[in-house]
Amino acid sequence: MTHTPLNIDLDTLMLELEELAAFSDTPAPSVTRVLWTETDQKARSYLKTRIEQAGFSWREDATGNIFATFEGKQPRLPKVGTGSHIDAIPHAGKYDGTVGVLGGLEAMRTLKRSGFQPRRSIELLIFNAEEPTRFGVGCLGSRMLSGALKPEEALKFRDQEGLSFEEARQQGGFSGDLNQIRLHENYFFAFVELHIEQMPNLEKQGLPIGVVTAIAAPSSFKLHLTGQGGHAGAVLMPDRKDAFLAASEIALCIEQAVKDHGSIDTVGTVGLVNVYPNAINSIPSKVDLGVDLRDIDADRRDRVLQALLQAAEDICLKRGIKLELEMLNQDPPAKSDPMLVRTIQKNCENLGIAYQNMVSRAYHDSLFMARIAPTAMVFIPCKDGISHRPDEYSSPEHIRIGVEVLAGVLRDLGEV
Amino acid sequence: MTHTPLNIDLDTLMLELEELAAFSDTPAPSVTRVLWTETDQKARSYLKTRIEQAGFSWREDATGNIFATFEGKQPRLPKVGTGSHIDAIPHAGKYDGTVGVLGGLEAMRTLKRSGFQPRRSIELLIFNAEEPTRFGVGCLGSRMLSGALKPEEALKFRDQEGLSFEEARQQGGFSGDLNQIRLHENYFFAFVELHIEQMPNLEKQGLPIGVVTAIAAPSSFKLHLTGQGGHAGAVLMPDRKDAFLAASEIALCIEQAVKDHGSIDTVGTVGLVNVYPNAINSIPSKVDLGVDLRDIDADRRDRVLQALLQAAEDICLKRGIKLELEMLNQDPPAKSDPMLVRTIQKNCENLGIAYQNMVSRAYHDSLFMARIAPTAMVFIPCKDGISHRPDEYSSPEHIRIGVEVLAGVLRDLGEV
Repeated sequence: MTHTPLNIDLDTLMLELEELAAFSDTPAPSVTRVLWTETDQKARSYLKTRIEQAGFSWREDATGNIFATFEGKQPRLPKVGTGSHIDAIPHAGKYDGTVGVLGGLEAMRTLKRSGFQPRRSIELLIFNAEEPTRFGVGCLGSRMLSGALKPEEALKFRDQEGLSFEEARQQGGFSGDLNQIRLHENYFFAFVELHIEQMPNLEKQGLPIGVVTAIAAPSSFKLHLTGQGGHAGAVLMPDRKDAFLAASEIALCIEQAVKDHGSIDTVGTVGLVNVYPNAINSIPSKVDLGVDLRDIDADRRDRVLQALLQAAEDICLKRGIKLELEMLNQDPPAKSDPMLVRTIQKNCENLGIAYQNMVSRAYHDSLFMARIAPTAMVFIPCKDGISHRPDEYSSPEHIRIGVEVLAGVLRDLGEV
Repeated sequence: MTHTPLNIDLDTLMLELEELAAFSDTPAPSVTRVLWTETDQKARSYLKTRIEQAGFSWREDATGNIFATFEGKQPRLPKVGTGSHIDAIPHAGKYDGTVGVLGGLEAMRTLKRSGFQPRRSIELLIFNAEEPTRFGVGCLGSRMLSGALKPEEALKFRDQEGLSFEEARQQGGFSGDLNQIRLHENYFFAFVELHIEQMPNLEKQGLPIGVVTAIAAPSSFKLHLTGQGGHAGAVLMPDRKDAFLAASEIALCIEQAVKDHGSIDTVGTVGLVNVYPNAINSIPSKVDLGVDLRDIDADRRDRVLQALLQAAEDICLKRGIKLELEMLNQDPPAKSDPMLVRTIQKNCENLGIAYQNMVSRAYHDSLFMARIAPTAMVFIPCKDGISHRPDEYSSPEHIRIGVEVLAGVLRDLGEV
């Protein structure tokens, strides 16, 4: 069947992206927004106001995941979900996550303006902390909503300042029973997330839309190295147990293990490095490394993981360093729902928009939503594939096309 | 000539060392005391009170270097100086520097109690920031007192929080003309510093005293590496410019350059490592390394420096990383004054105390005092040579012997 064309209000959406970016702990153009901080709270209330102004109701769970509802004719039916995250790692950009949140809101507003009322309610989900900034674990919100992370596990988390999950949650102004958070299997009929690609593929091929058929399997862990400190001038080289030299060898080994045992789709990164006491004239006694390893093939990823852990043990043995492994997560990859993939493709075709199917190497809340609902993702290009940086950029036209496709998909699903 | 024996009040001295250690920003047994912090200010007022209680006058210069004076019969004569520092790097111990400060005070008190009045005034100097913790440059106080560091250079410093030298100085409660700080060449007739060895040599040989004949030539610099950040899941390995991988290679190269081009007396350390954005799922875009390199032979040290800088350039070229070198200091070694060395040896012999001549690999304020006065140092053993750690330890008996020798030396010099 044919539909009335949907007119996205791009000016309002771009303005909202700018306004949301202004809630940051670092100066523009960089964006830093960490879970449950004052800045995060301000950004949340800004969004709630926009949701109310659009005439939608909203609720918040005991941790702050926000649900905005475009009520359907049969509100008891499993809902159609969309959404993403608003948190940003230190010195990040303004499009990662936010395009899926404000774009999802605009998609719902567009449908409402067009006079459409869905059969199933359409719900916008704003997930807590997709980024691992605060507790070292990504997708905190979607992990808890999907049951991948149990409340009792979350309660063990501490942030870098040593604040417990519960203390941090209270500072964020949230309370209530954590066992009520998990969504039951029939809560969503389908879930579709709009996101920037974070890679240069679509841009290189001049395509405005990527239809995500699978999400890579992410794994992250910490390596705690303990050596022996001392005065940088006084302890002779043969007598040293320098934890940072071991850490340096390990970082290079990780790069090597990925190249030797992985494929082009395997990526390994040491992104987090904390050295103690971190004084220029003191031998590092302790180093904590945070490592991110992922692949679209979980088995291959785990082979690389084993290889690099073995190498790390050998290095530490050789240098007299104590090594502790702290596994943060080791998640399986997710396959998109074929029916949803087809719905997205159909909408692109109806609008005459070129697309390609692709795999997401970056992981997203959809990775966990896929555990409780049929899920798929819509990607739009970002300049040079740059993300997690202040110069992250997606063009207004690409954002408009992404929201237009998303709105069409939500309409189709809402009518089922 | 023979002297009345000097009776050190060891109980009071050990108690003072404990009390001073309690002024710390980290829990005992660790000591963290950084220039111009509130904790530093509290420690200063504690010391001033002890100085006044001993009946000595004190003055403070425009940056907070403290001078406590045991006035001589001819106060206009060039003075006899002793002293050390009270600042401590994060998680350090309670003897580095403080033994020379409180031990120097006790030496002056002991002489006073014995009824001795010197011809030349004897002055205790408490130097600002011998450790580079705050501004990345060691011996801030003695550098400025000796003119090795000009006020206009110091004013360019910023601490890790970005606070300027002047802002930090004001927070510390100090003001006034920086050009008045420098001491003229005839201010001191001689300067003698008591310090823990920070190496295990004296302990291994069962010797209570080391007479320092030379201080190693220290050099420190920062390497600023700029690569390209990005999402840890999204940017493929061949497309990366990971600043931390370059930093890791450089750290290992420094270790290698020291082994290849140095001697057993050459030491190189990467003690300071700051990674940006330092998020587990983000490729490091920028890394700052703080490197400390020293040797008793300045030429050999500089050959190693050239070798490792060349290696660092090659690594950065290979990895597409921008490298900036920031030289912090490259000081010449200092030779002790033969007359002072002989005076220290003579006092040991009179007291029947075994000693050996030695070189100091750790550098000290004496390195800079040697530029404006005949200088020497007295070392006492510390357990296992451990320093800059909470378990740093010197025995009360060794501390007593060190102070007894220092007191005798100050008496001899005060009479000249």
